[in-house]
Amino acid sequence: MALSARRPRAREAGLVLGTLSPGPHNAITDVAGVRVGHVTLIAGEGPLVPGRGPVRTGVTVILPHEGNLFRQKVPAGIFVLNGFGKCLGQEQIDELGVIESPIALTGTMNVGVVADGLVAHAIRTNPDVGITTSTVNPVVGECSDAYLNDMQGRHVRQEHVLEAIAAARPGPVAEGCVGAGTGMSLFGFKGGIGTASRRLPALLGGYTVGALVLGNFGRREQLTIAGVPVGRELAHWQPPVDPEPPETGSVMVILATDAPLLDRGLRRLARRAALGLARTGSIAGHGSGDYIIAFSTANRIPHDPNGLVLTLRHIVEDGALIDGLFQAAVEATEEAVINALFAATTMVGRDGHVRHALPLDETLAILQRAGVLR
Amino acid sequence: MALSARRPRAREAGLVLGTLSPGPHNAITDVAGVRVGHVTLIAGEGPLVPGRGPVRTGVTVILPHEGNLFRQKVPAGIFVLNGFGKCLGQEQIDELGVIESPIALTGTMNVGVVADGLVAHAIRTNPDVGITTSTVNPVVGECSDAYLNDMQGRHVRQEHVLEAIAAARPGPVAEGCVGAGTGMSLFGFKGGIGTASRRLPALLGGYTVGALVLGNFGRREQLTIAGVPVGRELAHWQPPVDPEPPETGSVMVILATDAPLLDRGLRRLARRAALGLARTGSIAGHGSGDYIIAFSTANRIPHDPNGLVLTLRHIVEDGALIDGLFQAAVEATEEAVINALFAATTMVGRDGHVRHALPLDETLAILQRAGVLR
Amino acid sequence: MALSARRPRAREAGLVLGTLSPGPHNAITDVAGVRVGHVTLIAGEGPLVPGRGPVRTGVTVILPHEGNLFRQKVPAGIFVLNGFGKCLGQEQIDELGVIESPIALTGTMNVGVVADGLVAHAIRTNPDVGITTSTVNPVVGECSDAYLNDMQGRHVRQEHVLEAIAAARPGPVAEGCVGAGTGMSLFGFKGGIGTASRRLPALLGGYTVGALVLGNFGRREQLTIAGVPVGRELAHWQPPVDPEPPETGSVMVILATDAPLLDRGLRRLARRAALGLARTGSIAGHGSGDYIIAFSTANRIPHDPNGLVLTLRHIVEDGALIDGLFQAAVEATEEAVINALFAATTMVGRDGHVRHALPLDETLAILQRAGVLR
Amino acid sequence: MALSARRPRAREAGLVLGTLSPGPHNAITDVAGVRVGHVTLIAGEGPLVPGRGPVRTGVTVILPHEGNLFRQKVPAGIFVLNGFGKCLGQEQIDELGVIESPIALTGTMNVGVVADGLVAHAIRTNPDVGITTSTVNPVVGECSDAYLNDMQGRHVRQEHVLEAIAAARPGPVAEGCVGAGTGMSLFGFKGGIGTASRRLPALLGGYTVGALVLGNFGRREQLTIAGVPVGRELAHWQPPVDPEPPETGSVMVILATDAPLLDRGLRRLARRAALGLARTGSIAGHGSGDYIIAFSTANRIPHDPNGLVLTLRHIVEDGALIDGLFQAAVEATEEAVINALFAATTMVGRDGHVRHALPLDETLAILQRAGVLR
Repeated sequence: MALSARRPRAREAGLVLGTLSPGPHNAITDVAGVRVGHVTLIAGEGPLVPGRGPVRTGVTVILPHEGNLFRQKVPAGIFVLNGFGKCLGQEQIDELGVIESPIALTGTMNVGVVADGLVAHAIRTNPDVGITTSTVNPVVGECSDAYLNDMQGRHVRQEHVLEAIAAARPGPVAEGCVGAGTGMSLFGFKGGIGTASRRLPALLGGYTVGALVLGNFGRREQLTIAGVPVGRELAHWQPPVDPEPPETGSVMVILATDAPLLDRGLRRLARRAALGLARTGSIAGHGSGDYIIAFSTANRIPHDPNGLVLTLRHIVEDGALIDGLFQAAVEATEEAVINALFAATTMVGRDGHVRHALPLDETLAILQRAGVLR
Repeated sequence: MALSARRPRAREAGLVLGTLSPGPHNAITDVAGVRVGHVTLIAGEGPLVPGRGPVRTGVTVILPHEGNLFRQKVPAGIFVLNGFGKCLGQEQIDELGVIESPIALTGTMNVGVVADGLVAHAIRTNPDVGITTSTVNPVVGECSDAYLNDMQGRHVRQEHVLEAIAAARPGPVAEGCVGAGTGMSLFGFKGGIGTASRRLPALLGGYTVGALVLGNFGRREQLTIAGVPVGRELAHWQPPVDPEPPETGSVMVILATDAPLLDRGLRRLARRAALGLARTGSIAGHGSGDYIIAFSTANRIPHDPNGLVLTLRHIVEDGALIDGLFQAAVEATEEAVINALFAATTMVGRDGHVRHALPLDETLAILQRAGVLR
Repeated sequence: MALSARRPRAREAGLVLGTLSPGPHNAITDVAGVRVGHVTLIAGEGPLVPGRGPVRTGVTVILPHEGNLFRQKVPAGIFVLNGFGKCLGQEQIDELGVIESPIALTGTMNVGVVADGLVAHAIRTNPDVGITTSTVNPVVGECSDAYLNDMQGRHVRQEHVLEAIAAARPGPVAEGCVGAGTGMSLFGFKGGIGTASRRLPALLGGYTVGALVLGNFGRREQLTIAGVPVGRELAHWQPPVDPEPPETGSVMVILATDAPLLDRGLRRLARRAALGLARTGSIAGHGSGDYIIAFSTANRIPHDPNGLVLTLRHIVEDGALIDGLFQAAVEATEEAVINALFAATTMVGRDGHVRHALPLDETLAILQRAGVLR
Repeated sequence: MALSARRPRAREAGLVLGTLSPGPHNAITDVAGVRVGHVTLIAGEGPLVPGRGPVRTGVTVILPHEGNLFRQKVPAGIFVLNGFGKCLGQEQIDELGVIESPIALTGTMNVGVVADGLVAHAIRTNPDVGITTSTVNPVVGECSDAYLNDMQGRHVRQEHVLEAIAAARPGPVAEGCVGAGTGMSLFGFKGGIGTASRRLPALLGGYTVGALVLGNFGRREQLTIAGVPVGRELAHWQPPVDPEPPETGSVMVILATDAPLLDRGLRRLARRAALGLARTGSIAGHGSGDYIIAFSTANRIPHDPNGLVLTLRHIVEDGALIDGLFQAAVEATEEAVINALFAATTMVGRDGHVRHALPLDETLAILQRAGVLR
């Protein structure tokens, strides 16, 4: 974080994306109760020794609220823009419309272990899981950190998941080469974690939409910032992108909101995040597993309900509020991707593979010339 | 057409969107065999007399090949970005992976009559339909032309569908206020039909992806051209957008390709068109029914097959070809939307409602200043 | 109705399917407010003259409540078991989770005209449709009556739709060869409309699930009643099934409930109706378009809402209530199919095609021998 | 296995389900190349010590062919009847239409570890995975063995997965309390693994459809065998069903065929398995995660293809062949469930919980009286 902290976030650099205002942290944690935790694993250097290292990976968890999530579930919905990925948990979210587990993000080949870590967490916090009550639906998303990391080593362990959950907190969110973002690449530059948020005006309820992305997609020439084809202008920036690894992609987007949306509304919201990705230049390439998970903190679905019927709240799906939420999802996703790029610093990984940080000076100069900086 | 011909297409005006090259007509008809036909209905002016007029509507048909489509079906796939619409035919396309009817586009409330027109066409060309062979799956998409047109009048009749089919031809495609596009609005300006295409290099098979859009979505401030927020720069252009009608949207995108893709591949392609819409500023607003239908002309699925097994061709879904097709779909969709805007001319409709053409001089000046014109 | 009234319903004949109790009418109308209307079109005989006759078709409408459905929408969900059909309205139901139009059932090639009839109805009851408010999403399901009817003639007209809506009423529902069921075939016998219901005990809220089917699927040897392979036992019953027409199938199931379920819960309920079809012997044959539409009357979604947020009710999805509803959907669907078979009477259609009524005496004797009659 | 071998399979007991003929082993392995392997874990008895035991669980793997599946993928499709489950791999199957990993079945809380085991297997057999080629999509299905097993212990380890794969073989398949089926319950009796197959006549290509189920669903009173309500007739059989554990269900069905079906066709096939489940009495209860995965061995999709285009084979989706395959899927699924019940023997698990074997003498007597035994 120290290094990335020296690089400004997009908005700090004068880049204003979209027209809605961000929340106080311009982060997914602007949705009250949402917490984010990272565990970053960096060890070794030099040639890849499969199963040993070098290690450039990690895990990031997003917790929708501060209570017992298994006992107080929240509505959720998923949109799969390109299902070349190994996300766990989708079917139950589709079927029951809720999440009941922290959302964990990690490198692709860690999914099994991380899922097991979420199960361990559920058991610790709910000792009756799988004994006198039902099992838990762990939600795990992934991107491939193959270019920098010894993926075969699956270096994220159960304890790292528990550690990330314990470390989760509200407020500012570390971005760039942290947690699951440690080994990720974005438009041929170093990628990773980014976040942003948008807050609707009071007339539209003052609701917040926050986005957190694990950004690991795109080729250099596709990079678009505020509509400016920055990637093409950086086509000859040296050094060139190292030869692409065989699987060049994926992005996970997590959307949080305090607007009362149920699963159907959240699937609608999730689809809009794809439009935010497009604004950064994404074509959702074949090899890129692109998933969006959206949840709302406005309704709680109890695990141990009384009675036969719940009362739920849902926005009126007509008029300015829903379009405001949609716009917020587009803008927050777009800015979260750019924040990931701005924050991530150059990293050398396995076999001496290098992912260079987005050259900020050149980038800002391009944006300046295009007239899009404030 | 005369009027719209005087307005340049985007590329003629020096605007180059994306990096792939268009086909010879920069139109969906660059996919060999594809034909497009329009019937434009304009009649009356002044106050709305529901059921009478004024009439500002029409029908546009897209035919995948020149043969008997019912007898020689083509693979197809659909993506619904926002299902606030009344598209007919989706389930059977999802289930059987083919289309067997011309695709017809029209105003929302005409869907029933236009579907009936497609049935009439199927009966004429296949007298055994519904007697000794199965029935036909008509495919109809729609957008709302409520702002300019007497929708309640459902002025498109069966014979107009047959006429549009008879008028369908290859080569250049009329754009703007024609056919189904007659009464449409786009980013608060006059919208309608637009088209574009992309051709892959020979090393990638030289395949073509063509897009045709019925563009009827967006608010003025959202309009983005080549990444430039043209709509915001035109915020104070006079006259302002008339008060929006209650249903402000929808877009139908038809993608055609000669690359051998089956239904699953075509659904994947269709999803990328959504990213092309995003590049023009779309947030897929609540009220906008956004549908993409993609078909491929490279395999024919016979209605009356011999034997038990068909041999089909499908692209290798790995490497540069599929990403080239995806990029082509994004770029062709984006340019088709902009072409619709460039082509459409000011129209006065029911109750004196006016949709102004995009002011080209001002727009080109903005684009010039932003440095995106060639 | 006179003829069919002489044939007992399944339960009247001592056949008890499942273990839950039916409502007072054992019909979809046991859900308070639900109304059903039929228009039956029978004209001509002898050789088929395409476009002229003979006519053996009709339209059936289901109205979820007695108010203005466009203004007070109800939650709905769809499950497509086999999408070889031309159902209209699915995407908007999936997207918005409501229906706002009567559900109309008819013969396949009438879908366009019947959709137009629903639009006409919406305009009459809501003169602002498509002018100052949004358009309407007509919901039309179909099965093929090709074997008996002159399908190409599309003999159902707009006025028949309006007439069926006007005729809709609560209470007992005419079954068999009525409305959309007029020309349908079921397991090689005469099919058509059937209905049934189940009521949960008071401890589970006393909720009702009603099913109405338009039954037009299956081959004789598949017919299963109360688990007994009646079709196989009737294999040699004379006369044999006439040669099957090329399109041999389809079934539409409409489920109604007063239990508070939203769209997701209703999709879950709809899927269970497929299990009810299976109990009658269905294998969901390739040519059979099998659709289930479920709606709940327990929440109203206003077209012209006040404020930003709605309060909705939804059952607790755990424990005995939801499984009770699922079981009710299975049983009501199964019995509705059998009721359609029991009610339908022999019909001679185009070209002298005959569909024989299920031979009740033989059938009941088989069931008696198998020990399943009370 | 010794115990279960003494219990006859359904067909050996004179029970003929459906009308198609089974293959030589009446097992999923009748599809040439398909292999099945089990690892059964039984240890300890007495009170549950979470994390320690007693252990009543295991893992079952299904391998589509004998080659390197990652290098030679096979088409696949999934249908989720009730998504209350934690199946891994669905999105990529939906997106790419193939499986590239053995399918592993296990107890719910083992999913993470078993997925990790499949990754380990992929690395062993393809050392370039995640280094110079893409990652692998592990496919894991699960049911809850909470009633008998110490689920929290996740006693299945990576090595068990590798061991099950090594043990996989063609020919007869062990059924009942083996592998993943060790701790499962079915209609309140002991459940587990069952399998069956159907072979089409030579005129329809002689294709085979095989089913393997991990059966763990239903309440006693629902059990239906050959249409006979056996469960209701056994209502008072002693001892009664122990109080149900809180999560009472799930079933995984794996369908294999050598008929040339691609992903869409396989999804269609998978949906029919749900109808087979219904024939055994399933209502797809809320708590039952019901998934069907279907694959075909008739096309191989190479991981390292040459050229731009593949040639694929697909059945003609019309006429008797596809309906034959559908019927085969229904019948094989039904019989596989019944075989699981017939094979499974009484098991005592954690806390002295007992699941009694289906009482075969009583069951066969009931079936005899109903006249359904040969």
